[in-house]
Amino acid sequence: MQVKHPSYSVPNLPWEERPAGSSDVVWRYSANPIIPRDLLPTSNSIFNSAAVPFNGKFAGVFRADNKKRDMNINRGFSDDGFNWRLDPQPIEWLYDDPENAFTYYRYDPRVAWIEDRYWVMWCNGYHGPTIGIGYTYDFEKFHFLENALLPFNRNGVPFPRKINGKYVMFSRPSDNGHTPFGDIYLSQSPDMVHWGEHRFVMGTKGGWQSTKIGAGPVPIETPEGWLLFYHGVLTSCNGFVYSWSAALLDLEKPWKVIYRAAPYLLSPQTYYECVGDVPNVAFPCAALYDEPTGRIAVYYGGADTVTALAFCRVNEVLDWLKENSEL
Amino acid sequence: MQVKHPSYSVPNLPWEERPAGSSDVVWRYSANPIIPRDLLPTSNSIFNSAAVPFNGKFAGVFRADNKKRDMNINRGFSDDGFNWRLDPQPIEWLYDDPENAFTYYRYDPRVAWIEDRYWVMWCNGYHGPTIGIGYTYDFEKFHFLENALLPFNRNGVPFPRKINGKYVMFSRPSDNGHTPFGDIYLSQSPDMVHWGEHRFVMGTKGGWQSTKIGAGPVPIETPEGWLLFYHGVLTSCNGFVYSWSAALLDLEKPWKVIYRAAPYLLSPQTYYECVGDVPNVAFPCAALYDEPTGRIAVYYGGADTVTALAFCRVNEVLDWLKENSEL
Amino acid sequence: MQVKHPSYSVPNLPWEERPAGSSDVVWRYSANPIIPRDLLPTSNSIFNSAAVPFNGKFAGVFRADNKKRDMNINRGFSDDGFNWRLDPQPIEWLYDDPENAFTYYRYDPRVAWIEDRYWVMWCNGYHGPTIGIGYTYDFEKFHFLENALLPFNRNGVPFPRKINGKYVMFSRPSDNGHTPFGDIYLSQSPDMVHWGEHRFVMGTKGGWQSTKIGAGPVPIETPEGWLLFYHGVLTSCNGFVYSWSAALLDLEKPWKVIYRAAPYLLSPQTYYECVGDVPNVAFPCAALYDEPTGRIAVYYGGADTVTALAFCRVNEVLDWLKENSEL
Amino acid sequence: MQVKHPSYSVPNLPWEERPAGSSDVVWRYSANPIIPRDLLPTSNSIFNSAAVPFNGKFAGVFRADNKKRDMNINRGFSDDGFNWRLDPQPIEWLYDDPENAFTYYRYDPRVAWIEDRYWVMWCNGYHGPTIGIGYTYDFEKFHFLENALLPFNRNGVPFPRKINGKYVMFSRPSDNGHTPFGDIYLSQSPDMVHWGEHRFVMGTKGGWQSTKIGAGPVPIETPEGWLLFYHGVLTSCNGFVYSWSAALLDLEKPWKVIYRAAPYLLSPQTYYECVGDVPNVAFPCAALYDEPTGRIAVYYGGADTVTALAFCRVNEVLDWLKENSEL
Amino acid sequence: MQVKHPSYSVPNLPWEERPAGSSDVVWRYSANPIIPRDLLPTSNSIFNSAAVPFNGKFAGVFRADNKKRDMNINRGFSDDGFNWRLDPQPIEWLYDDPENAFTYYRYDPRVAWIEDRYWVMWCNGYHGPTIGIGYTYDFEKFHFLENALLPFNRNGVPFPRKINGKYVMFSRPSDNGHTPFGDIYLSQSPDMVHWGEHRFVMGTKGGWQSTKIGAGPVPIETPEGWLLFYHGVLTSCNGFVYSWSAALLDLEKPWKVIYRAAPYLLSPQTYYECVGDVPNVAFPCAALYDEPTGRIAVYYGGADTVTALAFCRVNEVLDWLKENSEL
Amino acid sequence: MQVKHPSYSVPNLPWEERPAGSSDVVWRYSANPIIPRDLLPTSNSIFNSAAVPFNGKFAGVFRADNKKRDMNINRGFSDDGFNWRLDPQPIEWLYDDPENAFTYYRYDPRVAWIEDRYWVMWCNGYHGPTIGIGYTYDFEKFHFLENALLPFNRNGVPFPRKINGKYVMFSRPSDNGHTPFGDIYLSQSPDMVHWGEHRFVMGTKGGWQSTKIGAGPVPIETPEGWLLFYHGVLTSCNGFVYSWSAALLDLEKPWKVIYRAAPYLLSPQTYYECVGDVPNVAFPCAALYDEPTGRIAVYYGGADTVTALAFCRVNEVLDWLKENSEL
Repeated sequence: MQVKHPSYSVPNLPWEERPAGSSDVVWRYSANPIIPRDLLPTSNSIFNSAAVPFNGKFAGVFRADNKKRDMNINRGFSDDGFNWRLDPQPIEWLYDDPENAFTYYRYDPRVAWIEDRYWVMWCNGYHGPTIGIGYTYDFEKFHFLENALLPFNRNGVPFPRKINGKYVMFSRPSDNGHTPFGDIYLSQSPDMVHWGEHRFVMGTKGGWQSTKIGAGPVPIETPEGWLLFYHGVLTSCNGFVYSWSAALLDLEKPWKVIYRAAPYLLSPQTYYECVGDVPNVAFPCAALYDEPTGRIAVYYGGADTVTALAFCRVNEVLDWLKENSEL
Repeated sequence: MQVKHPSYSVPNLPWEERPAGSSDVVWRYSANPIIPRDLLPTSNSIFNSAAVPFNGKFAGVFRADNKKRDMNINRGFSDDGFNWRLDPQPIEWLYDDPENAFTYYRYDPRVAWIEDRYWVMWCNGYHGPTIGIGYTYDFEKFHFLENALLPFNRNGVPFPRKINGKYVMFSRPSDNGHTPFGDIYLSQSPDMVHWGEHRFVMGTKGGWQSTKIGAGPVPIETPEGWLLFYHGVLTSCNGFVYSWSAALLDLEKPWKVIYRAAPYLLSPQTYYECVGDVPNVAFPCAALYDEPTGRIAVYYGGADTVTALAFCRVNEVLDWLKENSEL
Repeated sequence: MQVKHPSYSVPNLPWEERPAGSSDVVWRYSANPIIPRDLLPTSNSIFNSAAVPFNGKFAGVFRADNKKRDMNINRGFSDDGFNWRLDPQPIEWLYDDPENAFTYYRYDPRVAWIEDRYWVMWCNGYHGPTIGIGYTYDFEKFHFLENALLPFNRNGVPFPRKINGKYVMFSRPSDNGHTPFGDIYLSQSPDMVHWGEHRFVMGTKGGWQSTKIGAGPVPIETPEGWLLFYHGVLTSCNGFVYSWSAALLDLEKPWKVIYRAAPYLLSPQTYYECVGDVPNVAFPCAALYDEPTGRIAVYYGGADTVTALAFCRVNEVLDWLKENSEL
Repeated sequence: MQVKHPSYSVPNLPWEERPAGSSDVVWRYSANPIIPRDLLPTSNSIFNSAAVPFNGKFAGVFRADNKKRDMNINRGFSDDGFNWRLDPQPIEWLYDDPENAFTYYRYDPRVAWIEDRYWVMWCNGYHGPTIGIGYTYDFEKFHFLENALLPFNRNGVPFPRKINGKYVMFSRPSDNGHTPFGDIYLSQSPDMVHWGEHRFVMGTKGGWQSTKIGAGPVPIETPEGWLLFYHGVLTSCNGFVYSWSAALLDLEKPWKVIYRAAPYLLSPQTYYECVGDVPNVAFPCAALYDEPTGRIAVYYGGADTVTALAFCRVNEVLDWLKENSEL
Repeated sequence: MQVKHPSYSVPNLPWEERPAGSSDVVWRYSANPIIPRDLLPTSNSIFNSAAVPFNGKFAGVFRADNKKRDMNINRGFSDDGFNWRLDPQPIEWLYDDPENAFTYYRYDPRVAWIEDRYWVMWCNGYHGPTIGIGYTYDFEKFHFLENALLPFNRNGVPFPRKINGKYVMFSRPSDNGHTPFGDIYLSQSPDMVHWGEHRFVMGTKGGWQSTKIGAGPVPIETPEGWLLFYHGVLTSCNGFVYSWSAALLDLEKPWKVIYRAAPYLLSPQTYYECVGDVPNVAFPCAALYDEPTGRIAVYYGGADTVTALAFCRVNEVLDWLKENSEL
Repeated sequence: MQVKHPSYSVPNLPWEERPAGSSDVVWRYSANPIIPRDLLPTSNSIFNSAAVPFNGKFAGVFRADNKKRDMNINRGFSDDGFNWRLDPQPIEWLYDDPENAFTYYRYDPRVAWIEDRYWVMWCNGYHGPTIGIGYTYDFEKFHFLENALLPFNRNGVPFPRKINGKYVMFSRPSDNGHTPFGDIYLSQSPDMVHWGEHRFVMGTKGGWQSTKIGAGPVPIETPEGWLLFYHGVLTSCNGFVYSWSAALLDLEKPWKVIYRAAPYLLSPQTYYECVGDVPNVAFPCAALYDEPTGRIAVYYGGADTVTALAFCRVNEVLDWLKENSEL
């Protein structure tokens, strides 16, 4: 079997089988949450985290709000993908031009290996939220480019390879508050600095995804298309409810939606998803994929407070997606 | 003892005595919730449900949102009123005129036996929420009439018999969002199709019922008046809190309020009322009544997620109501 | 020529020819406004007024806010339809049941001759705005029925005859504020008291009618359908702009829209439409129609302050409507 | 050792040592909550409570909302500061001038011994929330003065002694709703009746204190300045989150901030802080201080539902404050 | 005839008789506006102005926004009360304590002679709007005290003499935006610095005064009570409409309302009241009174842009007030 | 004298001298408005228009809303810059890729000659407002590129030449409504398609520019820097007020602000600026500049209804700007 992307061979991917008697397509890790809010002595919460395979083990970039409730991102390492050690200090970024470096906050990172390095994207505070881009070769030194887009934007998510010779990313144009709207767009770039050829990918629909949606983990390439896990938000009379599900996008024109799930795959139902700093949030930011076995491990934030794991198999997700798709 | 309504003789009504040491007028069933959110493989939540006596056992119409978070109503059956079997498919309605049949959603049903059949009312999505009316003789075939009222309306609740030769129902005029206001009105009809002679019944008051109120179960006829359980909503800085209590209305002019409780009878205090899709909701939709013993079993939704039971005795409620009434 | 409705023969209808050089389908009276805000010593404004033929001359019901800014409706009389005498006192209504008679305010009346009397509808304050209905035989004694619909509703407009044996009216479900939404619905009644068989007629569209719409004058029966003038509202960054235009509805099933104008016929552009208590309002409430000549005189409010007249011909409106229709 | 204030010698102050292994500056009592919501048969919730040393034992004024959700304050007594007996009736206030005595509600009391008596301040409903002031010598008779300030104000907190010959209090100017802004001010008075010389003390900052802040317990005099515990509010997409921390103010000019903590000391993380009538609230209203040992016991409300205790030592708080201060 | 106040003998008060044929109690000056928006080369607008008798002629303090739209107040002089010369520079205030002197903006001044000097009150920007107080003996040097009240407050208006040995002022507690609520309160002070004994005077009512109300000119003492002109605001769908009318208050307990007009006396109806920076505003800030003739000249702002004059006679206003009062 | 840009030699620029007696830096054309709302038989309004020199005469792109209130842009021609002929049809755009061509609306165009052609930018409806870019060589054929930026954005304004080898444009990130915030940013591009190197230029300040600001006409190059006319918005209690003024930006780093006017240059004060579809709007979109004489003619929209002209001289504007600058 030919693995499509260097990150798609992860035989030691964290894994637990589906509970006996369950027929759920996605199931939670039985010892969730894997990262408690106070893993660091200074942390208020650790969630919405991006893990990747790294040197046969795992590394990642984690949203770690401190007890000021400042939002920033820290690196971390793990041998098994379950147990993590976090650097207590936020990442220090190297800059070419210090004039462009100031940032009010960083949150909700994603990480992707593309070609020769790990690219990091996150929501970056620059006169409002927008998409910051940086990279690292080794999780030791991190380099910051300029902001990719104008404010106001969130949920910048890179594709794991160039398409038609261009870098591609998702994002969600927003405003500067708790935005009550939001669709998924895609932008393209020759150099990770200048972005254009913006495309509308998909918008809100009914039910669990009626208020706003946003790309989750870096999409996974399958022979049938890009598998995207994405979050959706419903507004109840007591606030936002964040669930997540899946869509399949065209390989060459990834703004074309082939399938899109009508039901959610996972909605906040456990204590650690329903109770915390923001009740009723399940928010995925990373997905490890082992192509030979088809196993996928999804890292997602619970209640904007802790980090949890869920599991699924790529073929089961695709089958379910086809049966439950509504465009 | 002469029973006033064919539904008021329910010797096998689900029942559990008041806990030792408690003096609460209303008490919760110790094994709540009786219906979990995932009773059906496709259900996100099952709550705000309407149970009635049926052929010596029990039947009902249940709000069962699916994992798209579509809102619809399903029939269900029970031998003892505690354990329920739900039809996994929403009710299919028969229509005289298909042109009037389309519906965006259905939720929060009530069911009442009137004269020769079971009448069902619910919040029906027709260019906004309004009151849908239908009936069934046997819980097999369900017939839909037209919408009773113009949008925007919620909490349509029928009386269990005609008054002065006319059908009567409560409703709550609303708007098309998470309406921050709402009073209880009453309307009258010769034929369940044309409605008029609208009367204001009662509005919001302080405290737990300061934002909006709405009729709950079908009212219970007592020698002293119609006993109405109704919900009230308080707006905290973190959203709506739904509690419920009771009022007594004039038998002949049911828009005349005789007593109205100033305190709530039950407010969200347990885990299954405080944590779920909508935290802090206790919302009653049905009350079984056995007149010979005075026992009442109230079915209510918890956190817009599960179905729970509470119990009381009619004479204790009336006594308490008289002592705690503020008009 | 056979006149379809006793009100459709008005040879002395107020009239002024189209200005030379103009090709407008609707043109304003050159001496507008015909009723100034201070026609009565106590009036703050007189607008949104309903005129009808009466005993060879004209009578009407007028919205006349006083200097408290209380909203109420007064009767008035005119020999020529241009010059009006208003009763300085609001109409006093006779009631069968005084219990149902209280009213916080009345505004925006419409008047139609149906069968044997003049029916009056208006927005009636009863725990929120709803549709009040009354009648008069002689503009001396006025009788009030109950409110036709539950709150919250505005722009109740009767048809000038029964259709399929039932009375029919338009209305616009609303909320209890300066409602930022609103579509036109239709309801039917055997007796002017009980209303049902509600139908959606038409909703908002782009541009001048993007925020809300509402029926204007009593519709005019033509061989091709019911000609309805209706207002539409656009929300600029400085508030609402009320314009008006026309639609044609099916004679037998008047909730079926045959034609609907995409452009407005008249928008606020003159001083008396742009400057006043509510800037930028042109709001029609009555249309006199002389079928033999095809002349129509439309009474409309300007800036919620004064009453103005505009003119058109039925065949020109129908031709223009067909050319400019977008459904 | 010379004790600075008669209340600062409390050898029987309620106390539990820091849990083994913890390095937290503030730690929770292991048997929290100390007062359940239903301590009184009529109480909905008991929280935001003010305890003081009294005759070698403890007395206090408690916010005790009833099951109407009326807000009022009751007195209570305790032998050990952990176990409390509450008077089931709200305090009855004696007045010089009954004309000024009416009150819609009372909530969030603070109590301070100043000179010869216990002064009580609370949020008093008088055409909107403002600051009520009263006093008692013996917790038997309570005397009400007039409201100290105009509406709209909350969180009136007295200093425990005069400064430069004047009484001093904190307050937070507000509006009449769930105010989304709020800074701490200070006012001065020769007589507890007339207030002036208002000073801005400190405003919102980032993170946990970005929406509004308010003084908590009566400030504690230390040689280095006034130690103030205060709450701060962050607005998540699902509502307000109330945490608390500390600041140090100049002894003579207490509107001068010497240190102010950037992180919170305690944020809602336990079940009884996260789940209840208002999720995610930790709100301190009283602090007992024993100067010889440096022990402090803080009474705070959890989820606007129950009362909890937390502990710290004055020197540890001051050291931490210096290390974590951002002005 | 004994004149009650040194300012109540103004034989050269600006005056124009009521127009022939009019029966209005208040009538506009025929050459309004008396001060155009561009009287100063740097002024954007001059309105909401306070004139007083001064050395046999007239002086005043005027709101004069500049072309930055900064809000500030300038002194001005006039020989006849119609034609005004304004100092192009805002008033420079002398302070005892520079620490309290900073101000973001000043607007809507009132001026009263009390005992030995002219007192000036205005809305002063200090962490939000509140009431600034200052005085002048000669309109050359102006002295600033501290702010009288905490934010947020507007429409501070002094009484022209002490009552029961205390200074008295009206004010309107507000929030920090375009406040959609507001009632008139009264506060008392021994020294113009410390304020207390706050009293509710009157709140909003229906119609033209349904959103908020505020005191206008310094009240006029009459044998029957304090004559207060005050503004009221109605919210139309296109914003606020500011009209004004009158009330009579008890001489000794001026928070007791004896009469209060239900209709307005003057609402925005002319071009200079309806068109300008804020359409539909008539806002009175000063009233000159000549007791021997009973003449009153009211200075009011038009459309927040220009200054206008209106006239009335004290006995006619009182008679009208009695006939049109609703408490 | 060497002219800097081919468009900066316009000897027949429309011009009228400053009125005698005036010292205004900017003065209005005495015969304003130059384009009435009904210049086209189908137009509702013609405003916010971009004129340029073309073949010795003038051409332009005009916002021309029709009577549906659809927003679109039409070309127009003029011999003298005062009198304009508009194409009654909106511009038809040629596309390379029809997939990217759909547009809900177009408004507020700007036009600049750069290198070899006329570039057009406007607010383009694409899942929300963003910046559309196109070009024409001859005002006959118009070519559309893709949207330059993601939604939500408005007021895209090109510089008239490349800077440091890159195209440069201003824009204002927005949301999808009547955005109550907005600052001026700048973006750079090698190819007019891919944009990056975004820089914050300037944000809101007090007074007339306190709600939002946006670039107006294409900036004018002077030896001292880029002269930018820009609009600012103040929010009164009755809505937005649009004024305009000037700033000077660094020639090489145009995100560096050298001078910025604190006062406005022109605010809505005339009938055609204060009364119309949106009261109180003066909105500049084009400035013709004749470098040899220093004359500038500014085209601006009045009340979102008509097009007006104002005049100034470049050296007078620069002198005034230096004297009135506040950064």
